[in-house]
Amino acid sequence: MAYKYSYKTRDIKFILKEWLPVDEILAYDRYKDYYTKDDFDTIIDQVHKIAAEVIAPTAEEGDTVGVRFENGQAYIPPSFHAAYRFIQDNGWGTSNVDENAEGALPHVLNGLLLEIQAAANPAFMPYVGAGSGAAAVIQLFGNEEQKKRFLPKMFDGTWSGTMCLTEPTAGSDVGDLLSKAYPTDQPGIYKLKGQKIFITAGDRDDVENIIHLYLARVEGAAPGTKGLSLFIMPKYWVNEDGTLEDNDVQCVGVEHKLGLKGSATAALVVGENNNCRGWLLGDPPDENGIGQGIAQMFHMMNEARVDTGRLSTAVAANAYWNAVEYGRERVQGRLLTDPKGGRVTINKHEDVKRMYLLNKATTEACRAMLAKAYYYEDVRIYDPDPARRDWAQRMLDMITPLCKAYPSDEAWILTAESLQSYGGYGYCEDYPAASATRDCKIWSIWEGTNFIQSMDLIGRKWRQNKGQDFANLLKEIADFIAENKGKIEGFERELEHLEKALHAYYEIQGTILQYVTTGKVGLMPTFARRILTATAQLYCGYLLLDQAKIALKRMAELGKDHYDYNFYLGKVFSARYYLNNTVPNVWHIAEIIKIGDMSVVEAPDEIFDY
Amino acid sequence: MAYKYSYKTRDIKFILKEWLPVDEILAYDRYKDYYTKDDFDTIIDQVHKIAAEVIAPTAEEGDTVGVRFENGQAYIPPSFHAAYRFIQDNGWGTSNVDENAEGALPHVLNGLLLEIQAAANPAFMPYVGAGSGAAAVIQLFGNEEQKKRFLPKMFDGTWSGTMCLTEPTAGSDVGDLLSKAYPTDQPGIYKLKGQKIFITAGDRDDVENIIHLYLARVEGAAPGTKGLSLFIMPKYWVNEDGTLEDNDVQCVGVEHKLGLKGSATAALVVGENNNCRGWLLGDPPDENGIGQGIAQMFHMMNEARVDTGRLSTAVAANAYWNAVEYGRERVQGRLLTDPKGGRVTINKHEDVKRMYLLNKATTEACRAMLAKAYYYEDVRIYDPDPARRDWAQRMLDMITPLCKAYPSDEAWILTAESLQSYGGYGYCEDYPAASATRDCKIWSIWEGTNFIQSMDLIGRKWRQNKGQDFANLLKEIADFIAENKGKIEGFERELEHLEKALHAYYEIQGTILQYVTTGKVGLMPTFARRILTATAQLYCGYLLLDQAKIALKRMAELGKDHYDYNFYLGKVFSARYYLNNTVPNVWHIAEIIKIGDMSVVEAPDEIFDY
Repeated sequence: MAYKYSYKTRDIKFILKEWLPVDEILAYDRYKDYYTKDDFDTIIDQVHKIAAEVIAPTAEEGDTVGVRFENGQAYIPPSFHAAYRFIQDNGWGTSNVDENAEGALPHVLNGLLLEIQAAANPAFMPYVGAGSGAAAVIQLFGNEEQKKRFLPKMFDGTWSGTMCLTEPTAGSDVGDLLSKAYPTDQPGIYKLKGQKIFITAGDRDDVENIIHLYLARVEGAAPGTKGLSLFIMPKYWVNEDGTLEDNDVQCVGVEHKLGLKGSATAALVVGENNNCRGWLLGDPPDENGIGQGIAQMFHMMNEARVDTGRLSTAVAANAYWNAVEYGRERVQGRLLTDPKGGRVTINKHEDVKRMYLLNKATTEACRAMLAKAYYYEDVRIYDPDPARRDWAQRMLDMITPLCKAYPSDEAWILTAESLQSYGGYGYCEDYPAASATRDCKIWSIWEGTNFIQSMDLIGRKWRQNKGQDFANLLKEIADFIAENKGKIEGFERELEHLEKALHAYYEIQGTILQYVTTGKVGLMPTFARRILTATAQLYCGYLLLDQAKIALKRMAELGKDHYDYNFYLGKVFSARYYLNNTVPNVWHIAEIIKIGDMSVVEAPDEIFDY
Repeated sequence: MAYKYSYKTRDIKFILKEWLPVDEILAYDRYKDYYTKDDFDTIIDQVHKIAAEVIAPTAEEGDTVGVRFENGQAYIPPSFHAAYRFIQDNGWGTSNVDENAEGALPHVLNGLLLEIQAAANPAFMPYVGAGSGAAAVIQLFGNEEQKKRFLPKMFDGTWSGTMCLTEPTAGSDVGDLLSKAYPTDQPGIYKLKGQKIFITAGDRDDVENIIHLYLARVEGAAPGTKGLSLFIMPKYWVNEDGTLEDNDVQCVGVEHKLGLKGSATAALVVGENNNCRGWLLGDPPDENGIGQGIAQMFHMMNEARVDTGRLSTAVAANAYWNAVEYGRERVQGRLLTDPKGGRVTINKHEDVKRMYLLNKATTEACRAMLAKAYYYEDVRIYDPDPARRDWAQRMLDMITPLCKAYPSDEAWILTAESLQSYGGYGYCEDYPAASATRDCKIWSIWEGTNFIQSMDLIGRKWRQNKGQDFANLLKEIADFIAENKGKIEGFERELEHLEKALHAYYEIQGTILQYVTTGKVGLMPTFARRILTATAQLYCGYLLLDQAKIALKRMAELGKDHYDYNFYLGKVFSARYYLNNTVPNVWHIAEIIKIGDMSVVEAPDEIFDY
C-alpha cells in the first residue's frame, strides 16, 4: 500500500494556542458563545482521527482507480462517496460556510483543520471545498430567492458546487473567454452557451446536483474581464418546488493527469441544445457593459489561492513525516564521523537530516504564513472595528499571492528531497513519496499560475493603496527587528540575516522601479517569480523567528526533561535552519536583479530552434 | 499521443566540429582509417532519423504498457523488440564496444549520438546500454576463454548484460551486500547464492540470454567493498558447445515505478536451488581476502554515471524543445510592454522565455560538460602518449561525479519549468511534459545517489593525487580567465562573474578544510550537495563562455543574414544567461558555507517527530 498518513498536529496547536492572538477572534460575536481555546485540542484530535480513519483510507483507491468517465458521467472513486457524506454529516464540511448557522468553525481554526484533512487525501478535498466556495459566493452575492433555492442543500452537501472559468482558448487569459449569456423573458434568468475545461469536481456521481458558478459574457457587454458576469448554473435545473430537470450541461470528459487522479477534472459543454439556463448573480452589466462577475469570482478565487498553498503544505509535510518514519527503520551506511562504527539507520546521516530539516523548516514556514491568512480572514469579516476589518483585508490581499505560490513552488523541491531520502525505493510507487511529487505539481499552475501570482504581487499588490498596504507588511517586519535586536539570545546572527534581507528587499523594489522607469520594463516579468520567492522567504523568516522566540521561552520554563521540550527545540532548529540557509536567498536574488541581465528580454524566438 | 520527439542536433555538431579538438582523436590509430570530421554530419543526421523513426515510436507504449511480469519472466514492451534488433543490427549498439572490430565509433562521437537516441525513449536505452557496459568489462578483465564464450554474442546483441550490485539491505552501502560465492572443483567456477534488486534490464524476453555481472563475496574474503569479487553469471549457463541450460537465476518481480516504465527494473534470486554457477573475473581474493570485484565494477559504474547525466540532459532538452513548439502555437494573454496590442503566442511572454532560456542554457551546459567526458574517454584509452592518457584519466575522474549529479539534479527543475509553460495542459498526460518529469527522477538516485557523488567529489576527488588533479581542473578555468580577460567583447561582466566564482570556489575549499580541522567535520556532508552544484556551475560557466567565444567569431564572419547566424546568437545568449543568472550561485553557496550553520549537524532525531 503506497499511501501513508503520518500527519502531526503539534505545530498546529502551537499556532492556535501559543502564537496567534486567537483569543481576540474567539471574542467576536460570531464565535464567543461557541468556542474557547480549551476546546481546540479536542477538536484537532478529532479531525486528525477522522482524517486518518475516514479520509486517508480513500487515498490509495483515488490514485490507482482514479476517475472513470462513461456515457457523459464522471464516476469518482467509490470509496470517496462515504467519506464525503461523513464529512458533510458530521459538521466538517460545507456547513461551516453558513453565516447563519450556529457554531460554525472560526476560519483560523478551520483553515488548519483543512490542512490535517488535505494531507489525508488531497484528491478528495476539492469535492468538499468546491461546494463550500460556491456556497459562500451565493451567500454573499445572491438574492433572497437564490439563497433560499440553493443554499440549504449546498450547506448540507446534498448538492455540490464548482467554479467554471477556464475555456480551451482562455486559461490565464480569462478575459478572453467565449462563453455567452443571453437574457430571457424571465428577469435574472439567462440562456448560457459555451465550453469549460479543467473544472475541478466538475462532474461526479455522489451528489444529487452540482451548482456551477459559471463565468460568461452577457451579449453586448464589454470585452475583457470587466465585461463578465457570474451565473448560478445547476447541472440540473431547480424548479420552485425543488424538483430537478435537465439543464443541458454535459460533461464531455475528464483529464488524465500526472497526479490527483481521484479528483475529477472535467470538461463541460453547456447549452449545446440551446436549453441551458442560469441565474445571474448580482446586477446585469451596467450602461458601459461592465459586469460584476470577475469581482464575485475573485471572492472564491482568493480563497482557492490560499487553499492551494494549504494543499501544497499538507502534501509536502506528510511526505516529510513519511520519510522520517522510513529513515528511522532503514539501515544503510556508516557515519563519516564514526567510520569504524557499525551501520546506522539513515536518519543519522547529515545529508538525510538536511533533507528533513529543510522540509520541516519550510513546511512550518508555509504553515505559519497560511495561518496568518486564516487569521486575517476572521478579522476582516468579524472584527467589530471597521478600521481593523479594513486593515485585515489589506494584509490578506498582500499575502494571498505568497500563500498560493510559495508553498506550491517549494512542494516540488521538498517532495523530491523526501523521495530522494528513500534511495531507489522512493522511485517505486509502493512507497508514498512518488505520488506526493505527482500530486503537488498542479498547484504551481491552477488558480492563476505562479507567474500570475508574482505579477499580482509586484504589479498590483506593491502599488495597492499607493503602496501603503505593502509598506505596512514590510513595516511589520522592520518593527519586529527593531523590537528584538540583540534580545533573542543565540539568535543574534539570525536576526542580522533578517535585517539584511529586509534591506535587500528594499533594494529589489528600488531596482525594479528604476528598470520600469528606464525602458527596461521587461525585467519586471523576467524577475517576477524570483521576487515572489524572496518576498515569501523574507516574510517567513520573520514568522519563524517570531515563533522561535516563544519556543525559547517555553524551553526555559519546561526544562529538558519535559515531554514537550523537543517540540520547542524543533521550532528553534527550524528558525535557525531557515534564517541561515534560506533567508540569505533574499539578498542573493537582490544581487541577481541588480545584475539586471537583459538576455531573457532580448532573446529572439529563433534561438530556441536550437 | 503524449510522447513527442523534438530533438535538435545543431549544438552536437558544433561541439564536435567547432569546439572540441576532435581532429586529435580522429588521428589516433584506432580511428584514423575510418573517420573524418566530414562524415559527422551524415552520421548524426542518420542517427537522428533512426531515433525519430525507430526508437521514438516505442516511447508511448513503453510508458503506458510498461513491463509485464508473469510466471518468473519479465516481458518488455512489444515494440521494443524490433527497435533493439534494429539498433544492434545496424551498428549503433553493443558492437561499438568491440576493441577489435573495425570502424567502431569514437567515444566523443558516440557519446553524443547516444544522447540523440536517449531522448527518443529513455526507457529503451538501458536495453542496449547495459549489454554494452557488461561486454566492456568482460573484454577488459576476462580471460581468453571467457571472452570467446561470451563476447561475440554480446557484441551482436543476441545476448545482453547487466550489472548486479544492489540488494534489499545494501544499496548505497554496497560493501555490506550478502551475496556469496563458493569455489567449486572447476577452476574459476563458483556457486553463487543471493538476492539482487533494482537490476536495470535485469530480465527481458527479447534476447536469448542475459550475461549478468554479479558482485558477491567469496566465502572467507574480507568484509566491506574490498572483499568483493565480480562474476559472469549468465541467466542460462553457456556450455562449451554453445548450448544453454538453466542456471538457477530467477526473476521474482519488476518494480512499479514513477517513470521509465518501459525499463525492466528486476529483482533476482540466484542459487535458490544451489545450482547457480558463475565465472570469476580476474583473480580470486588474495591472501588478505581482497578481491578485484569493486574495481572491475567501477569501470562499468563510471560509464553508467556519465550515461546518467546524458539521459538527464536528453530528457530535459527534449522537454524544452517540446515546450517551445507548443509555445509557438498557443495563444494566451497580451504583452506587458504592449497591453493594448492583441493576444500573443505564449512564447512572447518574458516568463516563458525565461523558462526556455534557462532550459537552453542549462542543457547546453550539461551537454558541454558531458562532451568533455566523452573526449577524455578517447584520450585516456587511445592517445599514444602515456602522460596524456594519464592526464585524461585524471580529468575524467574529476568531472565524473559532476556529470552524474548536476544534470540529474537540474532535470527535475528544468522539466518542471517546461511543464509549467504549458499551463494546465502540462499536468495532463496527453502532453509530453508530465512523463518527462516522471522519467527523470530516478537519475538523482541510481548509480550512486547524488549525495554519494558529492562526497566522492569533495572527499575523494578533491584529494586525489595530493589535490593536484582537482587543482589542474581549477587551473584550466583560471588560465581561461587570464587568457581572455578584457578580450571577449561584450562579455566583460560575464568574465568577471566567472573570476568571482572561481575565487569563491577557493574559499569554499578553504572553509571546508577549516571545518574539518576544527571539529566541524559534519559540515562537510551537510554542504556536500551544494558544493557539487557550485562546482558544476563554475565549470559549466567556463565551458559556455569558451563556446560563446567561438560563436561570436562565427557571427562576425557570417553576418546576420546567414541561415546559421541564429544558432551562434543562441550560444551567446546561453552564455550570457548562465553567467549572469546561474554562476553567481557559486559565491552565494560560498557565503552559505561560510555562515556555517550547524543546525543540521546538531539536530537531534526527536525534533522530527514534529
